[in-house]
Amino acid sequence: MKKQGILLIISGPSGSGKGTIVGQLCEKNDFALSISATTRKPREKEEHGVHYFFHTREEFEQMKERKELLEWAEFCGNYYGTPRKYVTEQLMQGKNVILEIEVQGALQVKKIYPEGVLVFMVPPNLEELGRRLTNRGTEDKETINMRLRRALEEMELVEEYDYLVINDTVEQAAEDILTIVDAEGMKCSRNKDIKKIFKGEM
Amino acid sequence: MKKQGILLIISGPSGSGKGTIVGQLCEKNDFALSISATTRKPREKEEHGVHYFFHTREEFEQMKERKELLEWAEFCGNYYGTPRKYVTEQLMQGKNVILEIEVQGALQVKKIYPEGVLVFMVPPNLEELGRRLTNRGTEDKETINMRLRRALEEMELVEEYDYLVINDTVEQAAEDILTIVDAEGMKCSRNKDIKKIFKGEM
Repeated sequence: MKKQGILLIISGPSGSGKGTIVGQLCEKNDFALSISATTRKPREKEEHGVHYFFHTREEFEQMKERKELLEWAEFCGNYYGTPRKYVTEQLMQGKNVILEIEVQGALQVKKIYPEGVLVFMVPPNLEELGRRLTNRGTEDKETINMRLRRALEEMELVEEYDYLVINDTVEQAAEDILTIVDAEGMKCSRNKDIKKIFKGEM
Repeated sequence: MKKQGILLIISGPSGSGKGTIVGQLCEKNDFALSISATTRKPREKEEHGVHYFFHTREEFEQMKERKELLEWAEFCGNYYGTPRKYVTEQLMQGKNVILEIEVQGALQVKKIYPEGVLVFMVPPNLEELGRRLTNRGTEDKETINMRLRRALEEMELVEEYDYLVINDTVEQAAEDILTIVDAEGMKCSRNKDIKKIFKGEM
């Protein structure tokens, strides 16, 4: 019998390096990346079912009503959300799934899917975060300061998370996430069949 | 600041191979083994504070009253228990501590020390357990059957445990326990200082 995959919900401040690590886990470790649904128009080269699931407002609102979304939010007049179907299909096939998402959405998902594993990723300290944001060279000083303040705000919710991963190097942080997934796979709550196996019922 | 160690509470049926794995973790990975207190007389070569803490009945009863024991039980007219002091001293020094203990005692410890990590260790299946007990060559068929029945009884409580480790090979099982300890070290509940670090308070 195939064991169900683990849903990993990763949050962390902008500049924490989440994106790089998630990319590596999908590429090297065969994690599936959750695909968001949105009502915004597809940009050039964006494909339905690859980059996003593109929907009309009416379709999206139906998905909300039918509880087909693990979380959703509205930004700049467009809906964004996580369709439950794609995620559960992957998990049922035994694949681990990653959801990279901001704090409020992450806590919504955990409520609906408590077996999900919440990981908060941070750089070693605030100075390092400032350094990384500066080195990107894409944002002015004011925006960077806003991001640093936002990081401190988000950290207020860190206690709601299951695990803290300190991203000192990409290799170590990716390794840490694999350790978490391995340990979670040994949770008794994910191995309830063991009693049946011992009783000879499986 | 030194991080506190993790208390690992390991149970599992006789023949699951707990003892071998615990020995290896203490020897190779520098885990501290919890030392029990008892009122039974020391055997030859047994040293106080090494093999056991030897106490009179009066002393032991005082320890019980003063809540100085993480768990205790009476067998064949003697008290056995786990002194909290030795365990917490090791943990405060940042050392991981192992407590190898039967199911009822393990659940007592978890109640008093919820940060403790409960690990249930089993062989891959009941046939393998029977084979291992037979291969020991120290017990007759009746005793082995009694141990197998007892194993099934203990497994009824597996859901109270945090993790299930299937001891297929000693190397893999020891590795699994190290994975669990590493992941537990990343739990947000064990890293509450991160907020202070980011706020520059540490």
